[in-house]
Amino acid sequence: MTYCLGFLLEAGLVMASDCRTNAGVDYISTYRKMHIFRPSDDRLIVLLAAGNLATTQAVLNRIQRDLDRAQRGRGTSEEKGEDAAEQKRLGSLLDADYLFEVADYVGQISREVQAEFKPVLSQAGASGSASFILGGQIAGQPHGLFMIYPQGNAVMATTETPFLQIGESKYGKPPLDGLANTAMSLEDAARLCLVSQVITRRSNLTVGPPFDLVILRRNELRVAQQLRLGADSEALQGFLHTWVEVQREALERLPRFPWEPQAGSGEASTASWTSTTIDPALS
Amino acid sequence: MTYCLGFLLEAGLVMASDCRTNAGVDYISTYRKMHIFRPSDDRLIVLLAAGNLATTQAVLNRIQRDLDRAQRGRGTSEEKGEDAAEQKRLGSLLDADYLFEVADYVGQISREVQAEFKPVLSQAGASGSASFILGGQIAGQPHGLFMIYPQGNAVMATTETPFLQIGESKYGKPPLDGLANTAMSLEDAARLCLVSQVITRRSNLTVGPPFDLVILRRNELRVAQQLRLGADSEALQGFLHTWVEVQREALERLPRFPWEPQAGSGEASTASWTSTTIDPALS
Repeated sequence: MTYCLGFLLEAGLVMASDCRTNAGVDYISTYRKMHIFRPSDDRLIVLLAAGNLATTQAVLNRIQRDLDRAQRGRGTSEEKGEDAAEQKRLGSLLDADYLFEVADYVGQISREVQAEFKPVLSQAGASGSASFILGGQIAGQPHGLFMIYPQGNAVMATTETPFLQIGESKYGKPPLDGLANTAMSLEDAARLCLVSQVITRRSNLTVGPPFDLVILRRNELRVAQQLRLGADSEALQGFLHTWVEVQREALERLPRFPWEPQAGSGEASTASWTSTTIDPALS
Repeated sequence: MTYCLGFLLEAGLVMASDCRTNAGVDYISTYRKMHIFRPSDDRLIVLLAAGNLATTQAVLNRIQRDLDRAQRGRGTSEEKGEDAAEQKRLGSLLDADYLFEVADYVGQISREVQAEFKPVLSQAGASGSASFILGGQIAGQPHGLFMIYPQGNAVMATTETPFLQIGESKYGKPPLDGLANTAMSLEDAARLCLVSQVITRRSNLTVGPPFDLVILRRNELRVAQQLRLGADSEALQGFLHTWVEVQREALERLPRFPWEPQAGSGEASTASWTSTTIDPALS
């Protein structure tokens, strides 16, 4: 499995990913899921990848090949066998005027790779599906964040739902649901993303360090900060330790039950439980 | 979906469940998942149920019928068509000397019900599978907690892993992984279970109030405390509000990044990040 997330903020973008890949529990490897493209000064594209590793690697290789060809002045028109629909796709990341066009382009390549291997993979009972989170900015356009589905279509992060997740997303979602908003500082958002990663890692073996983190500031069109936190990172351990410690303290602040003495008063609580319905069938 | 959990403590047991049942998103209902049996003074059995509602209701109805027959002095021997293996099952909850026998008994009934409906359900592309958490105590035996799989076999909670979950278990697992231990007070454990429920409910529509909570004290052989918390419960809202508030404060306490001023010092941090590996390929 994998866990990647992106966080859209007024101030920019934060993106984080783990590095664990597994095919069964006895074949666990480390692969980067975060891929940064800055093919020219006017655009920065970060892709996070989840799903079948062969598919995601093939997609990234084709994106890079398209870029190489474009930078050498060769188009992709020499490629054969593309039908009319596929001809509409961009030549490379350099051709996009909008970020959503990049999402379409990545989605189309992903669909092509999956279609190529689907017949043989499905015979083997395997899935070649993959999903991506795309973040970045093209000069003259706002920064943005997209989740690209295995089918190649994409949804955007918005101010109402500023984060997007792929892979093993459930364990790390509650802190984001509780706290995430677009007005946060990039650093607080980055802390929240790392917390989401380390608690997921603790609860699920298929997500693991090192964790990659990248911060993009709005309109800078380059990576503002990037970190890789290995399992031995004191800071990484500090994230989990502090988070658990705070939750331990939180138990003290949560409501007392009606039969417990209230903190400081010695009297049992009733007020805060008045709307509690005790079902007579249970007694 | 459903979310139920049980927590084994030195002092007793805490069990919690939600009440949401859904068949698709346009058929959402409220059903109790917590069922308490105290067929005699020497035993207390609590069952939490997840999975196909028809299956779990049928299992509970058969358990109750067995009890009724036993209490009226009629055995179940009149039932026909049971093979030798099934004959080994208990006559009713009253016949168990050990809690694991109750787990076996519930598992056998669950398997019988599932086997009865599997041919028709699988034709309709539906699953009749169900799982259960069983907690309780029989006089002379320690209190215990079991998770009964759809196949009818069961695992026990232990001091190393004192909690068991069924249903939509991922969202609510990290706080348990961080804090759960058998030495906690029953009330703190109950708070932790409710937190696990309310954060799951916030992140997933298929888990919803009211939440049922029951506390069993070791060797009491009766329910010590039980609560039902509806959506309008001020206390329930207090659990989520306090939990989120504490996490918001936690962001202040998490490690500062190397490029940020350290709290109080005005100088950028380096010490705690020394083991960070920055991959040259990323720059």
